[in-house]
Amino acid sequence: MSRDKKVIFNDVTLRDGMHAISHQYSTEQIAELTRLIDESGVDIIEATHGDGLGGSSIQFGFSKETEKDIITTAVKHAKNAKVGVLLLPGIGTIDHLKRAREWGASVVRIATHCSEADVSEQHIKTAVEMGMDTVGFLMMSHRSSPEDLLEQAKKMESYGAGTIYVVDSAGALTMDDTRRRLSLFKENLSTQVGFHGHNNLSLGVANSIVAIEEGADRVDTSLAGMGAGAGNTATEQLVAVMNKLNLPHSVDLYKSMDAAENVVKPMMNRPVQIDRLSLTLGYTGVYSSFLLFAERAGKEYGVDPRDILTKISEMGAVGGQEDWIIGVAQDLAKEQKVHV
Amino acid sequence: MSRDKKVIFNDVTLRDGMHAISHQYSTEQIAELTRLIDESGVDIIEATHGDGLGGSSIQFGFSKETEKDIITTAVKHAKNAKVGVLLLPGIGTIDHLKRAREWGASVVRIATHCSEADVSEQHIKTAVEMGMDTVGFLMMSHRSSPEDLLEQAKKMESYGAGTIYVVDSAGALTMDDTRRRLSLFKENLSTQVGFHGHNNLSLGVANSIVAIEEGADRVDTSLAGMGAGAGNTATEQLVAVMNKLNLPHSVDLYKSMDAAENVVKPMMNRPVQIDRLSLTLGYTGVYSSFLLFAERAGKEYGVDPRDILTKISEMGAVGGQEDWIIGVAQDLAKEQKVHV
Repeated sequence: MSRDKKVIFNDVTLRDGMHAISHQYSTEQIAELTRLIDESGVDIIEATHGDGLGGSSIQFGFSKETEKDIITTAVKHAKNAKVGVLLLPGIGTIDHLKRAREWGASVVRIATHCSEADVSEQHIKTAVEMGMDTVGFLMMSHRSSPEDLLEQAKKMESYGAGTIYVVDSAGALTMDDTRRRLSLFKENLSTQVGFHGHNNLSLGVANSIVAIEEGADRVDTSLAGMGAGAGNTATEQLVAVMNKLNLPHSVDLYKSMDAAENVVKPMMNRPVQIDRLSLTLGYTGVYSSFLLFAERAGKEYGVDPRDILTKISEMGAVGGQEDWIIGVAQDLAKEQKVHV
Repeated sequence: MSRDKKVIFNDVTLRDGMHAISHQYSTEQIAELTRLIDESGVDIIEATHGDGLGGSSIQFGFSKETEKDIITTAVKHAKNAKVGVLLLPGIGTIDHLKRAREWGASVVRIATHCSEADVSEQHIKTAVEMGMDTVGFLMMSHRSSPEDLLEQAKKMESYGAGTIYVVDSAGALTMDDTRRRLSLFKENLSTQVGFHGHNNLSLGVANSIVAIEEGADRVDTSLAGMGAGAGNTATEQLVAVMNKLNLPHSVDLYKSMDAAENVVKPMMNRPVQIDRLSLTLGYTGVYSSFLLFAERAGKEYGVDPRDILTKISEMGAVGGQEDWIIGVAQDLAKEQKVHV
């Protein structure tokens, strides 16, 4: 495999990693991690509440530090890397975005469900007007066919996004799934394209390599995989494989290994790993918000919560439809003749 | 991807997993694990000291139970699966093999360094004569080019092995590396072919899928990845991905997930995971026996042990040449003008 143009690393340790620490990074930790990530040669450092701008709330959990402190601390300590923020329309607003811009964020990723790019129009346009590096971020990309996903990406392109991402939020894409989406994007978009992987099926690194083979301009990683569920693609692991394949990038392997081992792993409240629950999420490809409900209903109706999640996935449920679960559990109990 | 012939699962929880528990499984644990693995639908259960028959010694560490107890316990509790053993000529002997056969082992894997298939001749021939399912097992396969590896495989084929494995002992193969070796084997051997993966570069599952795509008849896995270094390809993770890809096998996903989570993980003395050391082994592709020496020499000469391992790998050192390390450390210190 050969390639001339370097792959841009977008670090999410300070954003997706927020999920793994219940959004409780202190400014000291943010400063230290920013310095280490910056010194390792990463291009973009995303620092925001796990659920993006405006995410600090009763609904999504309060972050330890204010949005302003998170962003300005990262901006202050990033000497070479650009600082980015995440924004989910509906949670974050244009006003949040303007403030983040004032605080020094120069990259923004506007994130929508894979079938709802429409809601990103205003935010993308505003970000472009403010001169930001503006990225469309299509979450739960496994839930759309490659063709449907491209259609949504085209919308984001038309709004002015300079980069569009295939986002494997649930870590549910196989390598073929990833290849088909990335190749279609590269063939049909004039923007840069990116890939955001999770490791639920143990394919975070492999899918990222496949994405790069298909021409991805950007990849998301975090140190030690610090992130939601089974974690993100781990920076140091992807860098090791890219080095072996002579794929160009600017990240120092040893520095990322050392930061992952000496600084990030000790910060983890629980190990970020593939366990039965995170594997089940990747396997069924449902939102993590369904997990707890499925476990409760499984217990009540005497059926395996994994069967419930599989069924829910087949039905195409999206976040907010957790009330479907009881019906599914009842049906399964009937099918399986469970007596409770 | 489609395929008719089912993939044979060879479980190594009770053999490679021995390394992760310093060969200290009790007969009770061996009985429980055999029952669970057998019930999950795995085809072959390998149960031996981590370094194979005769491995229980001062040099490699004593196992808690005798060879006889390990094998007979597995044989007793495996209702459907065949029980296999590993044999490294030089450690295990023909006599060990005959006894294992008497105790009920019906599969044997004769393991040599990737360039030393010659030493397997007697053992393979004897195993075939005894009517065993006889497998040639080419360790550290990343150290030979695909063409050279095939040449060695041809030797094992000529001795009568029914299956030949590409063994990624150090977890150092990329997906392309795996694909090239497996495709060459499939094109040029009339035996079955297999793949044994480790997860040092986070590619255990991905490489196994690639191997299956290329026609591998058998794959090695262990519950929760229980095994040396960063662990083996985890059974439950590979099964999940194979199910998504409709690749045929006979392993129950939930049963393997439950056994991994409820039984195997609690047995681990330390988490089997990708950390700086295991990642370095995969990256440099050297024997784990070099690690401790490299760390010591690095400290003494003020150079990074990872640089030493990289250099040692470039020089093509194999087990037994650990004395090269001091010279390498001295050279690196000179190059890097380290003053100690």
